[in-house]
Amino acid sequence: MTRKSGPSTTRRGLLKGALAAGGAAVVGGAARAGNGDPAILEPQPWRTSLGDGVDAHPYGMPVEYERHVVRRNVPWLTADPVSSVNFTPLHELDGIITPNGLCFERHHGGAAVIDPGMHRLMINGLVDTPMVFTMEDIMRFPRENRVYFLECAANSGMEWRGAQLNGVQFTHGMVHNVMYTGVPLRYLLEAAGVKTAGTWILAEGGDASAMTRSIPIEKAMDDCLVAFKMNGEALRAEQGYPIRLVVPGWEGNMWVKWLRRIEVGDRPWHQREETSKYTDLMPDGRARRFTWVMDAKSVITSPSPQKPILHGPGRTVITGIAWSGRGTIPRVDVSLDGGVNWHRARMDGPSFDKSIHRFYYEFDWDGRPLLLQSRAMDSTGYVQPTKNQLREIRGTESIYHNNGIQTWAVNEKGIAENVEVS
Amino acid sequence: MTRKSGPSTTRRGLLKGALAAGGAAVVGGAARAGNGDPAILEPQPWRTSLGDGVDAHPYGMPVEYERHVVRRNVPWLTADPVSSVNFTPLHELDGIITPNGLCFERHHGGAAVIDPGMHRLMINGLVDTPMVFTMEDIMRFPRENRVYFLECAANSGMEWRGAQLNGVQFTHGMVHNVMYTGVPLRYLLEAAGVKTAGTWILAEGGDASAMTRSIPIEKAMDDCLVAFKMNGEALRAEQGYPIRLVVPGWEGNMWVKWLRRIEVGDRPWHQREETSKYTDLMPDGRARRFTWVMDAKSVITSPSPQKPILHGPGRTVITGIAWSGRGTIPRVDVSLDGGVNWHRARMDGPSFDKSIHRFYYEFDWDGRPLLLQSRAMDSTGYVQPTKNQLREIRGTESIYHNNGIQTWAVNEKGIAENVEVS
Repeated sequence: MTRKSGPSTTRRGLLKGALAAGGAAVVGGAARAGNGDPAILEPQPWRTSLGDGVDAHPYGMPVEYERHVVRRNVPWLTADPVSSVNFTPLHELDGIITPNGLCFERHHGGAAVIDPGMHRLMINGLVDTPMVFTMEDIMRFPRENRVYFLECAANSGMEWRGAQLNGVQFTHGMVHNVMYTGVPLRYLLEAAGVKTAGTWILAEGGDASAMTRSIPIEKAMDDCLVAFKMNGEALRAEQGYPIRLVVPGWEGNMWVKWLRRIEVGDRPWHQREETSKYTDLMPDGRARRFTWVMDAKSVITSPSPQKPILHGPGRTVITGIAWSGRGTIPRVDVSLDGGVNWHRARMDGPSFDKSIHRFYYEFDWDGRPLLLQSRAMDSTGYVQPTKNQLREIRGTESIYHNNGIQTWAVNEKGIAENVEVS
Repeated sequence: MTRKSGPSTTRRGLLKGALAAGGAAVVGGAARAGNGDPAILEPQPWRTSLGDGVDAHPYGMPVEYERHVVRRNVPWLTADPVSSVNFTPLHELDGIITPNGLCFERHHGGAAVIDPGMHRLMINGLVDTPMVFTMEDIMRFPRENRVYFLECAANSGMEWRGAQLNGVQFTHGMVHNVMYTGVPLRYLLEAAGVKTAGTWILAEGGDASAMTRSIPIEKAMDDCLVAFKMNGEALRAEQGYPIRLVVPGWEGNMWVKWLRRIEVGDRPWHQREETSKYTDLMPDGRARRFTWVMDAKSVITSPSPQKPILHGPGRTVITGIAWSGRGTIPRVDVSLDGGVNWHRARMDGPSFDKSIHRFYYEFDWDGRPLLLQSRAMDSTGYVQPTKNQLREIRGTESIYHNNGIQTWAVNEKGIAENVEVS
């Protein structure tokens, strides 16, 4: 292990130098080494013994030190876990891709496990030729690859009536961002031949809940995909294997999983999931319907209640995510004082249409309490509103489409808490 | 389950229509349904029983029907699996992202499992202030997010002497493509202060093999990252958790995993892995050294020996991947006749610098034998050579840097085989 060649001094000399540098303030970070740091002075077990071979893990899993990075559900939220939700651990992620194993789940009859050889997709209704596609048939159409966020319309829904859940995983974790490979839905519809009267489609799922949603034909013929891959590999069962509908920028409930049928019709169907659910109850007792597009939204993922600042005052990295169902996110601002002053964040990483964007704000923390907020602006010029601005119009009876600004109060110990600011 | 409302006819009527359409040739695909297709006529078990709830899989795994999509090793290739390689199942993937669980592994002392709280990164040698960073220190520097391919220099190395391994997983599976989040190495070097005489760095791994490679300071200060996330989550153990060096476009062996030390010096170190290994033996007995950049390369992933054409003649999708260590891939051509005639492929999906690109070529297969090839052109104008063009200059004694054009012979049954064409 000991390196003998090279132009530099001995290992012992190097260690002395590094230790001597320990107290110095360092540009951009806080690199230092304390006297007797066991990580330096003792040989670590991973340097003195062999690890697993290349035959040990045909499909790899995260390392044991990351066991806490998992989807979590809230047992009291629903009557049964087969019709419920779990949440993406946003506070532990970075970049813009959500790993498949951590994409939040929402299902209404459990995660169906479908034999792809037995799966069929039917297109019927107002078409020239009703069609039934096998998976092999679908794989013969041209494919596209696109990165899109999927957000449940109920994401942050608990927050309408004030700060409730203490963790960005629970307040904002019903969103994920994936690179899909799929066949544009219009190719399949064109193969069946949509009649002139066909102005809507109904998408139906093949699981026990038989989810159904109505979608205007313009959207169906625009950018919807029948996806079979996510982040390069087959869809996961809980995400609709072998095929799901991708409805870019629109609420997640419309992205019908285990897709088995597309019916073409001349009006919306008014199914359960678009009447009693996924409509927005307004203060006057009436309900908004067809609120499909997910408006621009952002949230700081670190620090956050599950991810405190542990290093004390000094150079500190704030990071978070932003997305819009109407386009890209050219700008996010960050506030340290509950929205009084705003600082332009640094966007980094790919900017795709209807995809999560990553932002950073680096600053020198003086150790005093913070009221952290982020505010997204999308490529249409729309600016993410405050929660109170939303409430003024929509009241507090709604469950869906809360894209208001989130606030984390950080105390002098670096602990963050979900709070409301007026 | 039976839908009663809506403007269309009964389910039985729809099925009849779909079945009647079964024999018709269909634009863009081969959608049809045979009489008595059990997938349509019988209720499937996934529609009549509940799946797993949201508390069943905190970290999700692929569905059972995809169990064959795994990394595979070749036991006879090396003496021991702790100093060996396994291969990415390229034939089963689509898009450009490699899922973390399927990224090929190469290690020299097994996959080290390092406690991140005990891990340190030292920077020493020709610097003003030798430094030791904890993981927390590193997380206080600004981060970047970039998608890069990593290719082992020995990828396709067995093919120098002719077609050997029957499967794209084995001939080309030592490449993966990941979105990394990391700190630019130059920020850490700047914190230490590189002396004027410092023209090279040595990167050293913290595992039992203590991998070391020399890298010119220009590259280190350009686009190298000290990465801690891959595709959004923590690095996998086998990919260098908690930190690895990312050396965009350069051979994978230089991307030192479990990175523990960067030494700055005034000349290359000539370590084992840059003298006896990772040099290219030429016909005259001399060896090329410092052949770091991975030249433009492409391969058809489907059809391929592990992924035959099962659907018979008619509309057929050819797909594959292309990449270059010198830039992007604006163009890939596909040949059906062993390089006599070339057809421009359709590029689809994001085009990033030094990243895998996805291409497709859709055509009507007449059922006669094919000699499939793909040929990448990169943004510098470089054109992927044939294997024989490479051999004319480099001979057949080399192991590394075979970026020659690959040929799959497809017979009339759709079975593909690894062959050589003159």
